[in-house]
Formats: sequence, structure tokens, C-alpha cells
Amino acid sequence: MPTHWFFYHTAEDPFAFPAGPGALKLRLFVQGGQQLCCTVIHSDRYDSPGSEQPLLMERIGSAGAYEIHEAVILTETGKCRYLFHAQNPAGEYVWFGERGVAGNREHAGSFQYAYMHRPEALKLPSWSTGAVVYQIYPSSFNHGTLQGITEKIPYLQELGVTAIYMTPIFESPSEHKYNTSDYYRIDPAFGSIDDLKALVEEAHRHGIKVLLDAVFNHAGDTFFAFRDVLEHGEHSRYKDWFFIRSYPVRQLPSPTYETFAKAEASMPKLNMDNPETADYMLAVAKYWVREAGIDGWRLDVANEVNPQFWTRLRRELKAEFPELLLIGEIMHASGPWLRGDQFDGGMNYVLREAVLEFFALQASGPVRFMEQLLHAEALCNDQANSAMFQLLGSHDTERFLTACKENGRGWDREGTALKRMKLAVFFQLTYIGIPMIYYGDEVGMEGATDPHCRKPMLWQAQEQNAELHEWYKTLIALRRQHTILQKGTFRPWFTDEVRGVLGFVRRWEQDKIGVIINNSPNAYQLELCSLHSDKNVMTDLLSGATIRNSGRILAEIEPFGCLLLY
Amino acid sequence: MPTHWFFYHTAEDPFAFPAGPGALKLRLFVQGGQQLCCTVIHSDRYDSPGSEQPLLMERIGSAGAYEIHEAVILTETGKCRYLFHAQNPAGEYVWFGERGVAGNREHAGSFQYAYMHRPEALKLPSWSTGAVVYQIYPSSFNHGTLQGITEKIPYLQELGVTAIYMTPIFESPSEHKYNTSDYYRIDPAFGSIDDLKALVEEAHRHGIKVLLDAVFNHAGDTFFAFRDVLEHGEHSRYKDWFFIRSYPVRQLPSPTYETFAKAEASMPKLNMDNPETADYMLAVAKYWVREAGIDGWRLDVANEVNPQFWTRLRRELKAEFPELLLIGEIMHASGPWLRGDQFDGGMNYVLREAVLEFFALQASGPVRFMEQLLHAEALCNDQANSAMFQLLGSHDTERFLTACKENGRGWDREGTALKRMKLAVFFQLTYIGIPMIYYGDEVGMEGATDPHCRKPMLWQAQEQNAELHEWYKTLIALRRQHTILQKGTFRPWFTDEVRGVLGFVRRWEQDKIGVIINNSPNAYQLELCSLHSDKNVMTDLLSGATIRNSGRILAEIEPFGCLLLY
Repeated sequence: MPTHWFFYHTAEDPFAFPAGPGALKLRLFVQGGQQLCCTVIHSDRYDSPGSEQPLLMERIGSAGAYEIHEAVILTETGKCRYLFHAQNPAGEYVWFGERGVAGNREHAGSFQYAYMHRPEALKLPSWSTGAVVYQIYPSSFNHGTLQGITEKIPYLQELGVTAIYMTPIFESPSEHKYNTSDYYRIDPAFGSIDDLKALVEEAHRHGIKVLLDAVFNHAGDTFFAFRDVLEHGEHSRYKDWFFIRSYPVRQLPSPTYETFAKAEASMPKLNMDNPETADYMLAVAKYWVREAGIDGWRLDVANEVNPQFWTRLRRELKAEFPELLLIGEIMHASGPWLRGDQFDGGMNYVLREAVLEFFALQASGPVRFMEQLLHAEALCNDQANSAMFQLLGSHDTERFLTACKENGRGWDREGTALKRMKLAVFFQLTYIGIPMIYYGDEVGMEGATDPHCRKPMLWQAQEQNAELHEWYKTLIALRRQHTILQKGTFRPWFTDEVRGVLGFVRRWEQDKIGVIINNSPNAYQLELCSLHSDKNVMTDLLSGATIRNSGRILAEIEPFGCLLLY
Repeated sequence: MPTHWFFYHTAEDPFAFPAGPGALKLRLFVQGGQQLCCTVIHSDRYDSPGSEQPLLMERIGSAGAYEIHEAVILTETGKCRYLFHAQNPAGEYVWFGERGVAGNREHAGSFQYAYMHRPEALKLPSWSTGAVVYQIYPSSFNHGTLQGITEKIPYLQELGVTAIYMTPIFESPSEHKYNTSDYYRIDPAFGSIDDLKALVEEAHRHGIKVLLDAVFNHAGDTFFAFRDVLEHGEHSRYKDWFFIRSYPVRQLPSPTYETFAKAEASMPKLNMDNPETADYMLAVAKYWVREAGIDGWRLDVANEVNPQFWTRLRRELKAEFPELLLIGEIMHASGPWLRGDQFDGGMNYVLREAVLEFFALQASGPVRFMEQLLHAEALCNDQANSAMFQLLGSHDTERFLTACKENGRGWDREGTALKRMKLAVFFQLTYIGIPMIYYGDEVGMEGATDPHCRKPMLWQAQEQNAELHEWYKTLIALRRQHTILQKGTFRPWFTDEVRGVLGFVRRWEQDKIGVIINNSPNAYQLELCSLHSDKNVMTDLLSGATIRNSGRILAEIEPFGCLLLY
């Protein structure tokens, strides 16, 4: 018995999670390089042995060392018992259950999904499906003020985005404002609370939602509570709002307290384990929703704050404002924060890495890119995946066009940077989740990482890249027009490693859209056999061209070109 | 590059968890059948590339399809970045990080343990380490009353146990009392609140802690709130305390509301998502600790109750009573409930399965038994493992001696049942966690599963098995005498599959105890080479005999015998 086949599964998110009322989705990791046929055998936990039903699992694809198999079990009671059966083409098989991998079923035991709790499923705001977000760095967008942003709402509406997310706007001595002085006050350089209200109102009138950025991991050293600690040391009534390592409290030569990152003296870490501090920040979070009517929070350095604060924040905010979107900044694998009790979604830097590697650096081929997509998706449950902010760049990264031009220090010898940028944007806007566009990317702004990626927005037509701008508008419009692109599942379709081409399928109910990406400097002749499709006529939604299934070659895709087949 | 080697790790409990101040324990699953040498390369998350330190991981042993490797990283800041390197004897190697398994380090990426929160580590009551628990089914212990139990405290003290856990004692129409009528009243058949106070007082005077059993998953159908629903249907103000499927509310022929298990009409499931219900039960949990001074709660059907209730219960109870022990009844893999925010430990039925299979049914050999031990341990963090109630049986199972006699329906042809029971008890009392003895097991009570396992305690000397009783006393005393047996780590030592013998080592600071178990009907000649030991003189703590390292054969272990080498 091949009991050394390796599987991984545990009866908890993201390997088992509610996928709708009475539906439990199971995900199984199977050792790569095996062609295994997997079945899940399931029943109600309280049914007697012998009542189990088999259900064939779907092989989603390879994520590298492992393959992903999935199935959705229907359950009336929400109490499931199940185990897996895996068989290879030679007929060898094993069972896999809670007690491990075994040649016989009893030795494997059964997994138990104890009970599917009603509030367990993430509840997303109704507006987040289909949203396209635009990130604004307020100091650099338009006159560096909220009023300046308000003036540009028509521009954003024309671009087609449905929400804006602004980095912090509260009082702070820095340009980026991630070291907050006063959580209750708009930075005077940006305007007033009335300016914020006007901005939100104008945005809403144009069908655009507004998200703000809150920094609860650390404060600025000019925050009143920390000033008090600097002044009164051990006698400050705020000393337990921070993590003071020793007294007297000093900032130089190196801080005697915990900070953000390494010894960032201007950013003392907040002690969010302290209920008083937690109460204070929770009140802040509620205040701005109530006062200004914002539609969501993006929470800075979310991964370093006590998760119990986030569960409380979610519970209290969602109870009062069910349409509020909560996004955590977690720059690595964000699964643990997206199980349903903390954030709706995260800033998907993990996806960005894969996109950067494939399109900008050309350092990976279609196979690895597809594996990375599936790997990233497998770390989260479906609803979290549908609420990820899918970004090509942000105020904390090199701009994507610059990365395309640098091309892994190949300095774009082929002159294909813009084409590759466009192809990456095409991917971003046809993939799952919530595409997030960093201000200026749509007009071809360039810049290395901070501070170069935070330069003033280019508003002069002659400085803007019109081709790219049109491309964004076209794709955003297509995404907004097709529910499939907003809500559809993602499935790999084919990869042509040698010629650098891949295809994937988005599916929603009975409809499908096929996405084909030619990430190579050569034209690609799309052959019928690649598609495994039985459709006779397809439409390319980009060009409007009809593609007939009549002959071996269906279409030619230009270098770094793409097709969107309906 | 062997990129199809399968590993599993994720930067969260039980694969990454605090193992003390500034210490992060990492656990890696490595595909079985490979002899891999694993190293973890780590640094502070904010240190620049190149500052990483390598640390060789310890191979703990095989858990079947995978092997467990562990390492403890020391971290000043609690912010860790790391990736794994695994190499086989042929020199082939791979990297394994957040982005997967890869031949090159950059492709693998790094795992990020974002921040080690101070309150994240489970805080166990100071008394739970070294505890030995005795489970009482009050209806059947002594006169079926609390006073009867109080009278037997000296008996329990002589046995050596340090805590008692009683199944429910609150008002209920059934004998088992898992369908509560009144959470605030002791069942009159058992006595009064004063009897409980007297019991707790007497127990405490003898150094014995007292745990009660609370049923918050469901109530009895005689519970006032459910009676109100039965009477007033949709108009009851308690209708949202339950999950009513349809009105009118009916109990027959099948309940129109959710219940415990399948259609147990007398046990309507409580809606603990409802804050009002949660408030009520939390008040109950506090009341008995305040009023009667109990030392812990065992929570019934803990796996089917909204986890958010448990996190709240833990937070509020531990804040007021830090010495309270919280044990969840989860009859399967209990890891998800033991991450530090819900229970201290669980009722370890997973361990019982392995022990039953090995000692009682003789259906597995030393290799599988050891694998099952490591598999069970790998599902939880260290502190949870140290607070598991390690049971051979309970009011919900066949008694262990009966299972030994049935012997998988072999009906104990060899007449070794008592010896195998003793060997299992030896294992239980030399293993990690908190041994839990089911009343009567210590005097040789027998009985198939419920109701036969719940018969009246045998108090007459002539009905009791004196040999077994002495055995329990000896082993409990040894456990209480040796800190190593209470707190020491567990490591496999050797397995002799052919001859049915295994050894493991408990280690605490510089001290070690070797445990050797001969689970076979043949005598076993312990050979020096099996031990991989450099000690010249060892003492068998059981017999007091000195074992000298002088010759190939060190000692002879009788059939179903054991050694406890110090």
C-alpha cells in the first residue's frame, strides 16, 4: 500500500469552509507528480456507519509540490463526517482521514466538521462584488487636499472605478501620515472634516465608495498618549498603551520602547492587548463611519496587531454597519486573518509577486505562474479570495511599469515594457477578487519604490499615456459589464510553457469566459486542440471579432496579446 | 531538483507557536520515507537579506505518511522571517517557503510569523501540571449524592488523584443530566448547593481540585426558556434562544427544531450566536465558580458551539479566575479549539483510540502506535498537549478492561486482559498530559458502552481488583514524585516491531526517564544496542532494581511487562 503518499487536509478553514447555506467546501492537497483520482466519502456525523455517500472530487490543478482537489458536500445539519479515497491509474489506493494515511479505511479514521455555524461564513458588503478600487496617496493626487480629490471624482467615474481607498488623512507630521498625531482630526494640510464629508458625498453621488486607512499597530510619537509617556515616564497614565522596555523613556540613540519595524522611534507600537487602548481605537473606527459615512477601512500592519482586537472590531463594526468593507494590510500569506472573524480581504501582495515575476521580470513561465495563482488561492476560503485587493503596486512598492522597464535589470531591451504592463492589467481585470489600481498607473506613471512611487499625479494630457489609459477604461468597463468576470470561479485551462501562453476560464452559473494570455514576444497561433472546447462560435470581447471553430487554427494572437472569449 | 517532495507548514498554530518568552517553535511535516536533513534559516522580519541564521531541526519521528521535524527559534522582537532547507543523503535539496517548494531560494519565498503577542500563549493554571484527574459519574459513585462523593474524598486522596471531574449535577430529569432543566440548581437527587460547597471544601482540604461539567450546546426540553417556546411558539420571547425550523413547535413525531445529535427531542440546541443566550450561560459559568469555588469547567459538545462564545467565556473567566482550568469535550482532532483562545485542553479520545488499538485490541504494533502518538501530538501546540485529559475510557465509552477482555472479539483467549490493562495504565501514567481515570477502572470495573459503563461503583473489597488498585496507586505516586513525568518532553526512543516492544523518553532539563513497554506475550531481552544509551547504571523506578550496563543483555522484561529507567 502506498501509505507514503502525502496528503494534507484539516477540518478547518481553508481546507473546509462554508460555501453557502448547507454547503461545505473541502479542499485536499495531494502530492504533486501523481495522477490521483480522489473521492470524498461523507455522511452526517451522527449517522451510523454505512450511510456514507461518495463524491468525486474535482482536480483544480497543480500548485507546485502539491495538487489541489476540491468538492462541495451538501449537508442539511451542518455536521459532517468524511474521509478521502485516492487511487492511481495502476489501481493502487489509500484512505486518508483524521488518523492519517492508511491502506484500510478503519485505520484512516474520519475527519469531523463539527458544526457549520450560521455567522461563520464571511458576509461581504453587497457592493464589494464587482468593485474596482482606486488607491490614492492624498499628498500627491490633486493639490494634495481632500478638496482636490473631490474635484477629480468625475475623472474617476470616467475611468470606471467604483471605490477609492486613500492612505491616511489624519493629523500627522509626515507626508505619508502613517505616524498619527490625532486620530480624530483630518490633517490641516488636507482639509477639514467638512472636506471629507463633501468628498464622500460627491463620491457617493457618482456611485463611488470611499475607504480610509487606519493605523492601529502604532501611533506617531506626537500622539497625545505617547507625549504623556515621554513627559511623565513611569508615572504616565498612558504607559500601558505602549510597550516600554525601560525607563526613563528615550527616543535616541535608540528607542527604549517597541516600535513599528526596527527602531522607528517616531512610531511607538500600541499595546492593543490593553482594553483601554483597544476601546479608544475602536471608538475612532466607529467615529469616522458615523460622522463621514465612509464605506470601509483598510487596516495598516494588520498582521502585527492582536487578532482579538480585530475580531472585536469586526463584530462591533459589522453589527452597526453591515455594508462596511474591512481590508487588512498583510504583505504575506494572509489566510489566518481571513477566516471570517477578522477581515473581509487583504492587500494581495502575494499575488503581486507572482504577477511581477511573470509579466514584469519574465522570470517565470506559464506553468509556474499558474501554480502560484493556485497556491495563493488555496491559502484562503472562497469569500476571502473574492474580497482580496488584487494590486500590481502600491505606495510601498516600485510602480509596475517601472518594473516592466527594468525587466529584472534587463532594461527592456525588446521595448515591450508597455505591452507587458498592458497584459498584466488585462490579467488583473479578468482575474478573481477586487482589482486595485494605484493612482497614476493608469496613465503610465513611473517610479522606483518609496519615495519615487509617490510622486504627484500626472494630470497634463501630454504627460499621460493615452493608450494605457484607454486600455484601463476598456477593461474596467468589460469587467463591470460581465458578471462572470466579477463573480465567476477561476479554473486553469491550458499552459503552453514553450510558447509562453496560458489560458484560464471564469465560470458563473451556465456562462463561461475564456481568458488567453500570450506572454511572449512571438505571435501565437491558437489551435483548436489547446482549447478542449466544443463551442462552434466564440466572440472576442476585446475586439468584438467572431472566432469560428472551423479548422485547426482558430486565431492568431499577437506578441503580448490576449483574447477574451465568450 | 526534487520539487515534488511534499512538505507542509504554515506560519500558525500548531506549526508555529510561542514556546516561552521570546521562543517560537516551528513544526514541519516532511514526506515520509525520505531521510531528510532539515534546516530552518531565520531572521527578524525587518532585517535585510543576508542576516539570516541557520538552525538544524530535530527529527522527532514518523507519524506515518509524514515525519515531524521541529526547531525553536529565539527571537527578541517576536517578528520572524524564515524558510526551510531540506537535503537528502544523495545531496539533493530543496527550499520550502511561503511560495512553495523550489530548487532556488528566491522562488520559495519566506514564511512570516508576523508578531508574537504576549497574551497569545496559553496560560495554564499553576496546578494543572502534574495533575491526575478522576472522573465521577455522580449517580453511580456513592449513594448517588454529592454527600456520598464528599465521604469518599479520603479514598481519592489515598488513590493519589489531585482533581475530580464530575459529569453534570444540575437539575435534570435524566440520570446522566446532560439535558439541563435549571442551570442554577443542583439536582435534588444529588443534594443542594450547600452539599456542593461542602464537597469542594473537603476536596480542597485534601489537596484535590473540583471540576464541573457544563452543557451549553443544548438545554433540556424542561429548561424554562424552551418550555416557554413550546407554550408560546412564535410569540415566545425565547424563540431565538433555539433554532426553530418551523411553527408550531412540535416534539413528535420528530422535532421541528435543531437538537443535539440527530433528533434528540429532549435536547434542543441552544442558539449561542444570540448574545442574550450567551450572556445567560456566561453568567451561569461565573456563578458556580464564585459561589462554590470550583476549579474548572469541562464543556460538553464544545465542538458544536460557536467558537466566539468560547473565546468570550475564556477571556471573561480567566480575567476573574486565572487558576480556572477549561477543558473542551471534542471527541475528534481538537486542535482548532486549543490555539490559546478557547480551551486549555480537551478530552483526548484521539489518544484513547490509539491506546485501545494497541493494548486492548492488539490490532496495531509498536510502529503504528508510536506514529499515532506523534500524529496526535502534532495536531496541537505544546501547552495544549500538556493539558489534554488523557483517558482510557469515560461515561461515553466501553470500559477499558472490558475492551481488553473482548480483545477485538478474540475474548481474551490468552488470559492476558488484566496484564494489558495494567500496561495501558502504565503508559497513561508515564505519558504527557493530564491522566484522567474513569471511576472504578482502578478497581477493575467492567462494562460495555453506555449504560453498562455507568454502573454503581464497587466499594466492597471482595469485588475490587486489589492488584490493579495497587498498580494505580504505585504509578500515580511515581508520577507525582517525578517532575520529569509531569512536565518532561516526549520523544520516541525505539520500536521493536517484531517483538512488540517500544521505548520512549521523557526529558526535563538535564534529567531523563526511559519508558519501555513490552506489549507482547513473550519475555523480552532488553539489549544494550536498542537503547542507544551511554549510561552505565540505571534504576528501574518500578522495582527499584539497578540495571548495569555490563554485557549485551541488560534486563529481561516479562510478557506485558515494563521498565521505568531513571
